[in-house]
Amino acid sequence: MTDKKKVITISREFGSGGRLIGKRLAEKLGVPYYDKELLDRIAEESGFSREMIEGAEKKAKNSFLYSLASAIGTGEAGPETLSLNERFFLAQFETIRKIAEEGSCVIVGRCADYILRGVPQAVNVFIYAEEEDKIKRAVEEYGIPEKDVRKGMRDTDKARANYYAYHTGRRWGGYLNFNLCIDSGYLEIDDIVDLIINYSDKMIERATHIWEED
Amino acid sequence: MTDKKKVITISREFGSGGRLIGKRLAEKLGVPYYDKELLDRIAEESGFSREMIEGAEKKAKNSFLYSLASAIGTGEAGPETLSLNERFFLAQFETIRKIAEEGSCVIVGRCADYILRGVPQAVNVFIYAEEEDKIKRAVEEYGIPEKDVRKGMRDTDKARANYYAYHTGRRWGGYLNFNLCIDSGYLEIDDIVDLIINYSDKMIERATHIWEED
Repeated sequence: MTDKKKVITISREFGSGGRLIGKRLAEKLGVPYYDKELLDRIAEESGFSREMIEGAEKKAKNSFLYSLASAIGTGEAGPETLSLNERFFLAQFETIRKIAEEGSCVIVGRCADYILRGVPQAVNVFIYAEEEDKIKRAVEEYGIPEKDVRKGMRDTDKARANYYAYHTGRRWGGYLNFNLCIDSGYLEIDDIVDLIINYSDKMIERATHIWEED
Repeated sequence: MTDKKKVITISREFGSGGRLIGKRLAEKLGVPYYDKELLDRIAEESGFSREMIEGAEKKAKNSFLYSLASAIGTGEAGPETLSLNERFFLAQFETIRKIAEEGSCVIVGRCADYILRGVPQAVNVFIYAEEEDKIKRAVEEYGIPEKDVRKGMRDTDKARANYYAYHTGRRWGGYLNFNLCIDSGYLEIDDIVDLIINYSDKMIERATHIWEED
């Protein structure tokens, strides 16, 4: 395993196990893991309260409300200022950039692949799975009642897609946003983690080699 | 490396190096490689001449002509019979299924991921790359004049997408069709080959384990 800096972002479909993969990956690499943990950092650095940030996150799950709130702003300021959602996103953007500068880490979700585009140490991974595999995982591992799982899955992925498209102008889950896309339904979690480490090591070693030649 | 049977299909964007990856993969695994080689087998087994098959292939590159020819058939037979294109595709379907039964191999293109769906030893891989990387490869390695490369790339991928969509009813390049999707622009070819072997070994070992438990 190379000890060169690498920032691995994990984007994932609901039920694909992407979050767990990100966690194990961070443990195995011995680097910080950011998912909900990011919210504390954003709160700390932006001055927004954790409650405000969580409120904005929830709103983002309803695409209509989210677009509306983003379009009209908070009502406190004129149209020339950024909406509250946009200010949250900007705070998130700055925090993620800062975290990536600090050293190796794993970041799950939060448009990190987009925010870190062009950063040569960033390795962007997408985790997906077939519907039946995702349902199985959501029921067995996340404990979601079987009757709710399809709707929950659809709604969550739709909210992620809306949020991503709104802030990045790109289609969520398009393979071109990623270095590597893995169907998690065919491998053990630990094997997927090893595969990502292997890819990242090779990619970073090669990039370093190219920089040194230039 | 496991010696259990595996049939690896490679789908690829033009300029991504997918064909070369497939070739090296077959060499490293010591298994047959099928790309243009398939046409000989199809000819041999279907009774169509190689020239007829190549003619149909060429026609497939023009989506308008292709759809038209497929829709109206050859004009020799009534509407209840299959068009010539459909008969070619059926012959290809049967040959690919047969080849996959014979033993481990690597198949590039030809809707093999679709044709082998549900075959547990099939590992479906998609190779893509960023536009600049593909252009560089097409010019430097395939020797295509720089002025023609963008149009050639667009036309070839469009023809592949048309052909795939027509015969499979699925969108070409959708990640859900694949077990693994790799951006070839960030790794050496040999490292990509190793990554695919690693994934395939783990996947086949796990599948075998699950079958044996059932």
